Amino acid sequence: MHTNSLESRRNFIRNLAIGTSLAFLPASSIMASSSLIAPFNFRKGAALLPLHYNENSLGMSNNALSAAKEAITLYGNRYADGAVDELKQLIASYNQIPPEQLILGNGSTEVLGAVVTYAASMNATLLEPSPTFGDVRSRAKARNVKVVQVELGDNFETNIEQLKQRADKLKGPILVNLCNPNNPTGTIVDKKLLSNWITNAPSNHIFLVDEAYHEYATSNPNYSSALPLIKNGKENLIVTRTFSKIFGMAGMRVGYGIAAPKTAKKLDSLSASFNLSAAGIAAAKASLLDKEFFNKSLNANERAKALLTNTLDELSLRYIPSNTNFVLHRINSDLNSYTQRMLANNIKVGRRMTKDDGWNRISIGTPSQMEAFTKTLKSFREKGWV
Amino acid sequence: MHTNSLESRRNFIRNLAIGTSLAFLPASSIMASSSLIAPFNFRKGAALLPLHYNENSLGMSNNALSAAKEAITLYGNRYADGAVDELKQLIASYNQIPPEQLILGNGSTEVLGAVVTYAASMNATLLEPSPTFGDVRSRAKARNVKVVQVELGDNFETNIEQLKQRADKLKGPILVNLCNPNNPTGTIVDKKLLSNWITNAPSNHIFLVDEAYHEYATSNPNYSSALPLIKNGKENLIVTRTFSKIFGMAGMRVGYGIAAPKTAKKLDSLSASFNLSAAGIAAAKASLLDKEFFNKSLNANERAKALLTNTLDELSLRYIPSNTNFVLHRINSDLNSYTQRMLANNIKVGRRMTKDDGWNRISIGTPSQMEAFTKTLKSFREKGWV
Repeated sequence: MHTNSLESRRNFIRNLAIGTSLAFLPASSIMASSSLIAPFNFRKGAALLPLHYNENSLGMSNNALSAAKEAITLYGNRYADGAVDELKQLIASYNQIPPEQLILGNGSTEVLGAVVTYAASMNATLLEPSPTFGDVRSRAKARNVKVVQVELGDNFETNIEQLKQRADKLKGPILVNLCNPNNPTGTIVDKKLLSNWITNAPSNHIFLVDEAYHEYATSNPNYSSALPLIKNGKENLIVTRTFSKIFGMAGMRVGYGIAAPKTAKKLDSLSASFNLSAAGIAAAKASLLDKEFFNKSLNANERAKALLTNTLDELSLRYIPSNTNFVLHRINSDLNSYTQRMLANNIKVGRRMTKDDGWNRISIGTPSQMEAFTKTLKSFREKGWV
Repeated sequence: MHTNSLESRRNFIRNLAIGTSLAFLPASSIMASSSLIAPFNFRKGAALLPLHYNENSLGMSNNALSAAKEAITLYGNRYADGAVDELKQLIASYNQIPPEQLILGNGSTEVLGAVVTYAASMNATLLEPSPTFGDVRSRAKARNVKVVQVELGDNFETNIEQLKQRADKLKGPILVNLCNPNNPTGTIVDKKLLSNWITNAPSNHIFLVDEAYHEYATSNPNYSSALPLIKNGKENLIVTRTFSKIFGMAGMRVGYGIAAPKTAKKLDSLSASFNLSAAGIAAAKASLLDKEFFNKSLNANERAKALLTNTLDELSLRYIPSNTNFVLHRINSDLNSYTQRMLANNIKVGRRMTKDDGWNRISIGTPSQMEAFTKTLKSFREKGWV
C-alpha cells in the first residue's frame, strides 16, 4: 500500500516533468509530493522493524540530537571549518593520539574508500577473509584492484595463519582488510595473533583494521584494538572507527581513521574536502562527551543480545557468539522463505551473507524490539518454519 | 578573546587526556568543555561577518530546515536508503534526466574527487584555467595527476581558444576542468564556444563542468549549462551542481553530478557508499520543492550585489562583472593589510586568489550585510586605505 502510493506519486512527478522546460516542478506537483518531505516516507519501509542494517535502534544521544539541530539552525548554510578542528581535537583526546593522526570521514566508509584509492595507487592486491563487510571489496573492484579471499573456518573464525601464509605468497604490495569484530559473523581475532602478524609483516603489507564494532568487543579479554600498534609507530596500518554503531548515528555520516601522521596525511588528501556536515560534527562532539548515553547504549545491546541468544538456545538454533550489535544464527530454512515470512510479520531481516544458506544476520534492536522478534521467532517454530 | 578562551579549553582537554588511559574524557573535562557543543564556538570566528567562503548568508529554506530536523530526530540513527532513492527521483525530475544519470555526492566536492580518481585511473592530464576553484587541482596532485594551467586573460576571462589549443597539443587522455561561472572571477564562458569545443573534442578529452553557481548565471543570455550536451549523448562530460550556494546548504553537504549513464555508474562506484546524511537528504528534497525560497534567495543576491557594485562604482574600484554570489574587485592596497583592517571591523574577507595582489573576492551577503560592508568600505576610503 505504502509502496504503491509512493510509486504513484513518483510516476506523477515523472510525468509532470516530461516534456516541460520548467526549472522548478510546477506548484501542483509540489502539493502532490509534499508528503515526500514528511517522515513517513523518509525511509523505505519505515513502518517495519528494521533488523537488517546493524543500526542502533536506541537512536543517538539526546545531547547529540539537540546539538545537531542547533548546529544546522545556526550554521547549516556555512562550511564547518572551525567545528571540524574542534571535533578533531576531541576525537584525538578520546583516542589519546595527536590530531595529525586522524582522518575524518563522511562515515568510516569514506575512509575505507580513501584507503582503497591509496592501495590502488601502489597496485596493491586486496587480501581479506570471506565473508566480511563488502564495502572495501566493492571499492577495490571499482578501482581495478585484484581481490584475493580466504574463507573463514567452520566456526566462522578468521584464520589469521592462512591469511598470513597467503600474504607471504603474494607478490608486491598487499592491502589486508580485516573487519574486527568481523561483519557478518560477530567474531574477533585473537589479539596476540593479530599483533604478531602486523608487527612482523613487511612494510608493503598495508593493514586496514575496520573497528566499526570496537566498543561492543572491549569486554572480551581476547580482543584488542590495533590502535596501540599505531601508537608504537607502525606506518602500514590504518584503524577505522564509526559513530554509526554504539553512538547511534548511522544517518549522520561521521567516522574516522587513525594512522601514522604520514599515512594519515596521504589518506586525508584522498578524501573529499569539507566532508563532514554541521549536523554530524555537532552530534559527534556531543556524543563523545555523553558517557551516560554510551553506557546506556552498551547495556541495552547486552540485555537485548541476551534476550535473543536465550531464545536461540531455547529453540536450539545455532549461533555464532557475537562481539557486536548483531548475531549470525541458523534459521532451519532457506533465507528467502524466512525473510518473506518475517516481512509478513512487519520485521525486516535478511540478505544472503554466508556461503551456505540457512543463516541470517540479525541486528540487535532494543530489548523491547528483541522481545517482539523472539516472540515472532517462537511462533515460527510452532508453525515448523524454523 | 574568544579564540583565547577556546584555546585554553583545548589545552585543558589535551592536558587531561595525556597520560590517562580512560576511554572517555573524565567528568570534569565534560563540564569544562560542555560549551564546545554550544553554538557560540561551533564555527571559527562565529561572531564575525563571514564574507570569504561564498556561502549563502540568507540561510537555507525554512522548509528545508524543518525537514532536516525532523529527519534526524526520526532517522538520525538509520542508514538513509529509501530517502536517497526519493531524492534521486526528485533531482532527476528537476533536471529532466533519468535517475541513472545522477551521481549524488557529499557536496559536489565528493563528485569532483570521484572524477579525479576516474581521470587518474586513465592516466589523464588535468588541464584548467588559472585561477579557478582549487579543489580539483589539489585532488589531482594527491593522485599524482599532472596539472597544466592556462592563465586567464586581462579581464579574467577564461580563454577557451587557448585551452583548446593546449588540449590538442597534449598527448593522451585529458581532464578539462571548467568552473562555469568561474570561481574566483564570477565570469562565464560563452555558451557557443563551450558547446563547440565539447562537441568536437576527441572522446579521451573528459570535460568536468563545475556549475556550483549555475542558478545565479541563468539570466545571462551568453550563459548555458553544459547539461543539454549530456542529454544529447556526450559521454565524456560531467556537470556538477551543489545545494551549497543558491539553496544555502553548505553545511549540509549535498551536491551531485550528471553524466551519461555509463559514466555516472563508474563515478558512483568511485564515491563513498552511504554518502548522504539524513539531514542533507531531507533538506535537499524540501529545497527542491520550495520555489518561493529559491526566488527569494536569487532576488536577495541580486539586490545585495547591486548595493555592492554601486559602491564599488562610486569609489571607482574596478570589479569583474559577476554571474555568481561573489565579486572580485580591486582594493587599492595589498590584500594582507586590507584583510587585517576588515578583521578589526569584524568582517572576514580575504585569501589571495589572483596572481596580482590588490584584489579581493568578496562573498555577497544579505542586503543588510552588504550595507554594513559598503559602509565600512567607504570609511576605508576616508582613511585612504582603499
